[in-house]
Amino acid sequence: MCRPLPASRCVTRWPEPATRCASRSRRRWPWPRCGAARARLATCLGRWARGTKAGSDLARRPPDRGGAPAPSIPHPGGLLSTPDTDTLQAIDAYLNDNEARFLDELFEFLRIPSVSTDPENAADVRRCAEWLIEHLQGIGLSTVELHETPGHPIVYAEHLGKEGAPTLLVYGHYDVQPPDPLELWTTPPFEPQVREGKIFARGATDDKGQVFCHIKGLEAWLQTVGELPINVKLLIEGEEEVGSVNLDHWIAAHKERLSCDAVVISDSSMFAPGIPSITYGLRGLAYLEMTVEGPDHDLHSGLFGGAIPNPINEIAGIIARLHDDKGQVAIPGFYDDVIALSDEERADFAALPFDEAGFLEESGAAALRGESGYTTLERIWARPTLDCNGIWGGFTGVGAKTVLPAKAHAKFSCRLVPGQDPERVAEQAEAFVREIAHPSVRVTVTPHHGGKPVLTERDAPAVQAATRALSRVWGKEAVFTRGGGSIPVVATFSDILKAPTVLMGLGLEDDRLHSPDEKFNLENFYAGVRASAYLWDESQS
Amino acid sequence: MCRPLPASRCVTRWPEPATRCASRSRRRWPWPRCGAARARLATCLGRWARGTKAGSDLARRPPDRGGAPAPSIPHPGGLLSTPDTDTLQAIDAYLNDNEARFLDELFEFLRIPSVSTDPENAADVRRCAEWLIEHLQGIGLSTVELHETPGHPIVYAEHLGKEGAPTLLVYGHYDVQPPDPLELWTTPPFEPQVREGKIFARGATDDKGQVFCHIKGLEAWLQTVGELPINVKLLIEGEEEVGSVNLDHWIAAHKERLSCDAVVISDSSMFAPGIPSITYGLRGLAYLEMTVEGPDHDLHSGLFGGAIPNPINEIAGIIARLHDDKGQVAIPGFYDDVIALSDEERADFAALPFDEAGFLEESGAAALRGESGYTTLERIWARPTLDCNGIWGGFTGVGAKTVLPAKAHAKFSCRLVPGQDPERVAEQAEAFVREIAHPSVRVTVTPHHGGKPVLTERDAPAVQAATRALSRVWGKEAVFTRGGGSIPVVATFSDILKAPTVLMGLGLEDDRLHSPDEKFNLENFYAGVRASAYLWDESQS
Repeated sequence: MCRPLPASRCVTRWPEPATRCASRSRRRWPWPRCGAARARLATCLGRWARGTKAGSDLARRPPDRGGAPAPSIPHPGGLLSTPDTDTLQAIDAYLNDNEARFLDELFEFLRIPSVSTDPENAADVRRCAEWLIEHLQGIGLSTVELHETPGHPIVYAEHLGKEGAPTLLVYGHYDVQPPDPLELWTTPPFEPQVREGKIFARGATDDKGQVFCHIKGLEAWLQTVGELPINVKLLIEGEEEVGSVNLDHWIAAHKERLSCDAVVISDSSMFAPGIPSITYGLRGLAYLEMTVEGPDHDLHSGLFGGAIPNPINEIAGIIARLHDDKGQVAIPGFYDDVIALSDEERADFAALPFDEAGFLEESGAAALRGESGYTTLERIWARPTLDCNGIWGGFTGVGAKTVLPAKAHAKFSCRLVPGQDPERVAEQAEAFVREIAHPSVRVTVTPHHGGKPVLTERDAPAVQAATRALSRVWGKEAVFTRGGGSIPVVATFSDILKAPTVLMGLGLEDDRLHSPDEKFNLENFYAGVRASAYLWDESQS
Repeated sequence: MCRPLPASRCVTRWPEPATRCASRSRRRWPWPRCGAARARLATCLGRWARGTKAGSDLARRPPDRGGAPAPSIPHPGGLLSTPDTDTLQAIDAYLNDNEARFLDELFEFLRIPSVSTDPENAADVRRCAEWLIEHLQGIGLSTVELHETPGHPIVYAEHLGKEGAPTLLVYGHYDVQPPDPLELWTTPPFEPQVREGKIFARGATDDKGQVFCHIKGLEAWLQTVGELPINVKLLIEGEEEVGSVNLDHWIAAHKERLSCDAVVISDSSMFAPGIPSITYGLRGLAYLEMTVEGPDHDLHSGLFGGAIPNPINEIAGIIARLHDDKGQVAIPGFYDDVIALSDEERADFAALPFDEAGFLEESGAAALRGESGYTTLERIWARPTLDCNGIWGGFTGVGAKTVLPAKAHAKFSCRLVPGQDPERVAEQAEAFVREIAHPSVRVTVTPHHGGKPVLTERDAPAVQAATRALSRVWGKEAVFTRGGGSIPVVATFSDILKAPTVLMGLGLEDDRLHSPDEKFNLENFYAGVRASAYLWDESQS
């Protein structure tokens, strides 16, 4: 049912802008701007790595050191590239010499309660943006600007002038989730503290800590070399946790200025501790709602039952026919545009230390269930799905009511993989539902929203550069992962800037983002700073 | 799939008590005591008679006379029996002579606001019972008793002593529905008035007017002949509209005393105006609830979708498999015990002036939908069904949530036909659901309640006697109907007294029971009185 990438397919490529990705929009598809969903994406990247359990080769990672003083930044293994040794040695020395200050500065950043969702914190959010402006000016970036929006301000900076060199746009956010419930924090959320080698604070990993890695990575170059080896743009918004409500508009309005060869985002997690990871694909979404109407009012099942169509019976029949016996989606044409996984990708996924039992245990389900012929990682990362998200109709209270209800409703959504188009899938789904519905009922299918899948080719220069940078820092080859969810801003960059995105997650699965005792391992912070500094170097070629 | 009545089948027969109907109860099946549902049953008996539309042969019925004076009681046609002419002539004369008084007395009865559900009317309910006691004593019944219950009192009377003659138990109720909304009544609900040949008052047809027909039918014999030709027991409860909560217990406690050859109930409607009707079968019920559990908490559909079972998808698959392509219930064994309709029954149903288009229009559905090979009347009266009554799971609010929910639930119920046992069907359904559920989900099936179907054989003496009585009054042969719903008290009589029930509805479909401007046509009142008087006569043989 799958086939290789057709020439006309909408896939972002790097560094060539995906100009072939012409919009087929006839309907308007609002992008979901759910900060929570976006942040949760992190959890698909590595929660179930076998290494998070005992006994794997991941046990080779350096042990937590516990408490101050801060650890030394891991030294690069230099496995996969040929760096300018003098320059990088100078940068390494700078990073080592300034470890303590970097941590102090991150603490300053973390102390500002930039909770974007709470109007009482509006001034704090602005103060945080202003702190960033001042800080970015301090490290030597040539242009640093605060841009007003109808909501919280956007911080934008750039350091250009490297003609002929690639341009990377780093995206991050300086706003944070509310800290509630406060009583579950071991130490106050806005009084950062290092315990057992971990920085505890709201925003430590989501996303202040991770975006700060890039800021320090830029500083290292600017303060040692005096310039960057490539062109860098920095976009740090203050509304990610409230759905980035003003971001699309701002990006569209600054489309020329933001033009770049690739976007880099560090706002997620590594596949597992000690396993540097690049996420190069995300699933898209087509969300629909259907209503099945039988009688025009609720009827007594004794008086009408058996002669009048029952909307619940009928909607169940429709839903049942949306899958075939092999667990594939039965909507005609559904798989037509799917870009099949390559043998190399499948081999790479299979080589990951994925803890399937842990994944199942985390879900609490009795057994796995999915499309025949695919592994679990393939199913959640690279195969399209159809899940009912909600269903309701008739009497749902306690007890019994012998009603033959007038209507039944269901919400369902397809996770889409690269190649698939949300609108086309929605149309296919609607047509199929109408086709299989019994003529005695009226069926309404309403597309709710959608999001395009994202695929950055693994051999794209930005992906390769990030891979080399991470591999050098961790001394082992970075792995390629995909994500089962969506990160809407990635699709925005793809749509508006025609730029691919490299997701270079620096956090860990147990970082408790959005929860009490959010943390960021010191090791990951320092390694992240170094990975950023190396990224500029690796991106020159 | 159906087969003829086996010797051991639980079917009530008359006059022989159905002693073979041994209880198979292992679970406790509480009988639903829904007065509204019971009353609504009426609406299955004739709402869609073609005669209720224009242009049928039912137009032959006498036109409404409008206003006082009351019409003469229709004279019996004497088609189908050989009455004791002298006695019946005397009775006819008595009925004619006392028309006005009968109406006055009914008005007295109707003026008492015996609303059983409202505690403020408790004294009125009691006053109504006491009024009945006095009235029943007045007409000459030998035994008249008020029985206390934890709720409203039961009025019981009997007139026995006819050794060798059959015993009929007449059941009715003297409580009424609340009159709200009061502003929609043309005249006050407890100030009865005759307009256009109809008695308007709360309780006019449900059930004071109908039970009063039997009281006057008894009076006619007692006041003219001085005795009854058979033995009669009268049970008039005061809690029908609140679910007959104390009736089962009282019947069980007075089982010997209530013993009878058949029960007669006039608390429903004729198939159509001018078409005297006997309802000899009712459907039963097996009500169940199922829960399908996948993960043990709600999951993100992006992170788990495609690999973890989705309870909504799964429950839909289960529900879809409960029917086959022909609209039959696919539960193995479901039809094993069904007593097939005889050719005669099918022919009789087919001969009824059933307005199928009106039935469909009333439902508001786009088309009929049911089991292949059966007519609509057969489907709703005499074929078992399975209807989902409610379904819920996941996100059901406005908007979208990409949840893979932990659970999905459905309530479903089977309408059962004579031969089927609610417990057995529930067990079959539970076993089948467990069998077809995917092993990756946990399924719980909980029987909620049930009720046995009822079938009184059409050639049973009580049915034949009632048929002859009605036919004589209306001058045309009574038709046989069944009901698609349940009347729990009928099953109670069957279970406890082992007595069959004859449903001799005297009302009409447009009587607006439970609604403002409830009415009882004068013609039906007087015809009902006469039918009752004739019933005693016809029951002698």
